[in-house]
Amino acid sequence: MSTTTSAPPEPSRDTSNEPAATTVATPSAAFTLTLRVELAADPGMLGKLTTALGDAGANIGTVIVISRTHHTVVRDIQIFCRDEIHGERVVTAARHVPGARIGSVTDQTFALHQGGKIEVMPRFALGSREELSIAYTPGVARISSAIAERPERVWDLTIKRNSVAVLTDGSAVLGLGNLGPHAALPVMEGKAMLFKQFGGIDAYPICADAHSVDEIVALGTMIAPGFGGINLEDISAPRAFEIERRLQDAVDIPVFHDDQHGTAIILLAALISAAQVVARPLADLRVVVLGTGAAGVAIIRILVDAGVHDIIALDRRGILHPGTANLDLERRWIVEHTNPERLTGDVATALRGADVFIGVSGANLIRAEWVRTMHDDAIVFPLANPTPEIMPESIPDNVRVVGTGSSDRPNQINNTLVFPGFFRGLLDAQARTVHPDMLVAAARVLADLVAQDGATADYIVPSVFDPRVVPAVASAVQAVAEARLSRSPQL
Amino acid sequence: MSTTTSAPPEPSRDTSNEPAATTVATPSAAFTLTLRVELAADPGMLGKLTTALGDAGANIGTVIVISRTHHTVVRDIQIFCRDEIHGERVVTAARHVPGARIGSVTDQTFALHQGGKIEVMPRFALGSREELSIAYTPGVARISSAIAERPERVWDLTIKRNSVAVLTDGSAVLGLGNLGPHAALPVMEGKAMLFKQFGGIDAYPICADAHSVDEIVALGTMIAPGFGGINLEDISAPRAFEIERRLQDAVDIPVFHDDQHGTAIILLAALISAAQVVARPLADLRVVVLGTGAAGVAIIRILVDAGVHDIIALDRRGILHPGTANLDLERRWIVEHTNPERLTGDVATALRGADVFIGVSGANLIRAEWVRTMHDDAIVFPLANPTPEIMPESIPDNVRVVGTGSSDRPNQINNTLVFPGFFRGLLDAQARTVHPDMLVAAARVLADLVAQDGATADYIVPSVFDPRVVPAVASAVQAVAEARLSRSPQL
Repeated sequence: MSTTTSAPPEPSRDTSNEPAATTVATPSAAFTLTLRVELAADPGMLGKLTTALGDAGANIGTVIVISRTHHTVVRDIQIFCRDEIHGERVVTAARHVPGARIGSVTDQTFALHQGGKIEVMPRFALGSREELSIAYTPGVARISSAIAERPERVWDLTIKRNSVAVLTDGSAVLGLGNLGPHAALPVMEGKAMLFKQFGGIDAYPICADAHSVDEIVALGTMIAPGFGGINLEDISAPRAFEIERRLQDAVDIPVFHDDQHGTAIILLAALISAAQVVARPLADLRVVVLGTGAAGVAIIRILVDAGVHDIIALDRRGILHPGTANLDLERRWIVEHTNPERLTGDVATALRGADVFIGVSGANLIRAEWVRTMHDDAIVFPLANPTPEIMPESIPDNVRVVGTGSSDRPNQINNTLVFPGFFRGLLDAQARTVHPDMLVAAARVLADLVAQDGATADYIVPSVFDPRVVPAVASAVQAVAEARLSRSPQL
Repeated sequence: MSTTTSAPPEPSRDTSNEPAATTVATPSAAFTLTLRVELAADPGMLGKLTTALGDAGANIGTVIVISRTHHTVVRDIQIFCRDEIHGERVVTAARHVPGARIGSVTDQTFALHQGGKIEVMPRFALGSREELSIAYTPGVARISSAIAERPERVWDLTIKRNSVAVLTDGSAVLGLGNLGPHAALPVMEGKAMLFKQFGGIDAYPICADAHSVDEIVALGTMIAPGFGGINLEDISAPRAFEIERRLQDAVDIPVFHDDQHGTAIILLAALISAAQVVARPLADLRVVVLGTGAAGVAIIRILVDAGVHDIIALDRRGILHPGTANLDLERRWIVEHTNPERLTGDVATALRGADVFIGVSGANLIRAEWVRTMHDDAIVFPLANPTPEIMPESIPDNVRVVGTGSSDRPNQINNTLVFPGFFRGLLDAQARTVHPDMLVAAARVLADLVAQDGATADYIVPSVFDPRVVPAVASAVQAVAEARLSRSPQL
C-alpha cells in the first residue's frame, strides 16, 4: 500500500536518496527488540532492569524465562522503541544496570522477515506414484484438455478462481518514494499475507522491473490468464490512473488500485459513521480534500458517487477551480465535479465554515487556528503517514471526530479493512471488472457494521480483526458484481 | 513439462484441434474413478462386484467402508481405468451386478483439481495489531528501506531467495500442443507442487498471454526482481532456444528450460548407469538420437559435454550431416559436433551397429528389425510419450537396457528427478546463471546414487521418492555454481 500522502502529484519522483520516513513518534511494535538478559537471581533485579528500560523511554512487552540456575535467571525481554537510534540508547541503558548481562539483541522486524513472509504450498501431498499420476503427468493432461475444450473451466480446475496478482513497479513504496521493485517486495508479501489471513485469497507479488505505462500494462495483460484479479499497488500517480484504466480495458479480470480505491472506501465508511455521530446528512456536508494524488482523486470520486455535493479540492497550488492552470484529465474531472461556488484561495480559505477536512497530503500542513474556523462538530481526517497534516493533540475543540492513518489511535483509516473482502467478493462473483457501485456498497456495509454496534466519536470504523468485516464487504461487492456482470461496465 | 517428443521442430504449430493424446494403454491412476456402492450384506457380494469390475478391465485400488446396516454395506471403491470411455464401460458393468446399487461416480483427477492444487500461505499468523505492525506497516517500511540501501539484502529479507517463476506461454503443453496459457495452468500448478514437495521451493505459475519471443523475454525480464530463478516450461521449439538464451542474458537470476535440460540431465544419468550395466565406457558408445526438438538438442549437447564422441542425430529428414539443407542455429551446431563419419541416410542406417538409441520423436517410428541390427547389449530409450517410438514388448533380445517415459515400467526417464534439486542448488548458491557443467554434474551424481545401490538392467535411475536425490543434485549444482559464481558464465 502506498501512503495516501501524495498531495501534489509528482510522477516517478526518485526519492531513493532521501532519508527513509520510518521514524514514529511513540514506541511502536515496528521497532521491537528482544534482549536476551542474564540477571543475578536477586529479588528486585528484574525491577531494576525494567525501570532502567522504562527510564530510557522503551515500552516493555513479553518477558519470558529461558533458563534458571541457583545464581542467575536468563530471560528474553521484548521492548518497543521509537526508532533504531532510540533502540541503541535503550540497549546501552540496559548494559549499565549492575547485575544484568545483556546477551543477544534481536530486531524482531528483521528476524520475522528473514527468508520472506509467504510460501507456496501444495493443497495435498503427493505421497505415491499414483498421486503423482493424478496431479501431474499423465493425469493433468486430462485437465489441460478439458480447459482447452471449454476455457471457462479454468475457473473451476485451477487456482485462478482464488488468486490475485499484487502488481507493483515500486515507484511509490509506502511513503518512501520510488525505491524500485526489490524494495517493494516485502510490502507486497505483507499484502499477500493479509489477503490470505483475512480473505482466504492466494495472492502472489509481481514486482516489476518496468518503467513506462506501456510496459506495466503489457505485463499485467500478459500475466492475467493465471489470475482471477489484479491488485495494483504502490504505483506512483498520475501514471497509476492511466495504468489502471488501460489494464482494465485490456483484461477480462478485475483490476483494483488499492492505494486509490481501498483508501477511498474506508474513508467513505468512516465519513458515513462520523456524519451519524454528529447527526448530519452526508449530502449537507462541506468537505475539504487536501491532496489530489492517487488517494485524493479516488476519495473525491467516491464522495461524488456517494452523494456529497459540496467538495472543495486543493493541491499545493490551492483550491482547484475552473481557472486553475495545467489541469490534467483527473484534475479536470475534479474541477467539473467540485467547488460549486467557484472558490479560490488557500487551505485556510477552504476550511472556513467547512464540516469535514480530509488530508491526503503531507506532514503538518494544517494549523490549529484554521481548523478553529471550521463548523462546530467538525470532522477531521488528517491521513498523511507517518506524520499527519495536524497532530491530533493540536486539534481544537470544535472538532468532534478525528481519524488518522495511525494504528496507535482510535479511528484508524486503514484499507486492510477493505481489500481482502473486496477481492473475496470479486472472485466469488467471477467479476470481470470493478464498478464504482461496488466501492460505495463496500463503504456503506462497513459503516453499517459500526452502526449496528453504535457509532461514537472514537468508533467510526470496525477493527481489522472483526470477523464480520470480510464476509460483509464480500457480499456487498458480490451482489453488485452479479447484478452487473452481464453489462460489463468499467470503473 | 512439455513432452520430449517434438522430433521435427514445428514452431508454434497449433494442435489445439487435434484429439488429446491422453489415452494410455493400461489402466492408470490418471483415470481413477471412485464408485460409491451400496451392496446387499450377503457373503460374496463384494467378490461378485469386484469380479465384474475386473472382467471389465479395471484395476481395483482402495476399498473402504462408508456405512453399514443390517442389510447393506456402503463402500467407496477406487478403480483405475484406461480412459474415459473405458471408465463408462466399467461403471455400466458394475450397474449390472445384481444386489449392487451404484451411487455417485467421482473422477478423482477432476475432483483433486477442483479449485487448484496450490495455495499461498503466510509463514506466520498475524494475530494481533502488533504483529500487523511488524509484518506490514509501519514495520515493513524498515525492511524496504534496508533493501533500498543495500539491494543484495532482498536475498535475505524476502521470498526471492526461495522462489521460482514457472513461466510458460502454453505453446507446447505436454504432448498436446499449443493449448494456450489457461490450459497450461494445471500443469504449472503441478510443477509448483513438485517444487515444494521435493525441493522445498516456492514456485508460482506465470501463464503468459504472450506470443512473440520478444514478448516472453520482456515478461521474464520484468518479473525477475521478485524471483530467485525462472523455470521455462512447455514453450515450443525452436522459439524456446532463443527465449532461454535472450532471457538469461537479460536477467541476473538463473533461467532453466526444464523440457530441455531436465530431460537431458536424467537421460545422461540413465545412460551412465546403463553403460555401467553393459560394462562399456561412455566415450566408446555410438549413440543415435532421433528427434532434434527442445529435448533432442539439449540431449545432444549434454552428451557432447559428457564426452560422448560418436553421436548420430536425425530429424524427420534423416541423419543430419554437413549437406543437410536449411540448418538453423541449433542444427548447425549439431552437425558440427556429431556424425564424425559424415553418414547419410535414415534411422535404419543409423541404427546399424549402434550401441544406444535415444528417441525424442513420435509414436512407433522404430521397427524391431532395425533394432536387431544394433550392437549386442544395446541400450534403447524410446522416450516419446504417451506412446514410445517402439513398444518395450517388441524390443528384440540384443537390447540389454530399456528406459521409457512411462511410470508403469522400470527405468522411467523422468525430469521430476532433476528440477527440484537443481533449483535447490541454484537458489542455495544464489547463482545468477546456469552453466553446462552444472547439468553434467547433476547427471553424474544421479548415476552415482544408482551405482551405490548397484545398477542393473532394471535400475538405472533412482526413484523420485528416494530421499537422497534432491540433496545430492542440489549439492552438485551448488558446488559448480559457487566455483563459477565470480565468472558469471552462461549456458
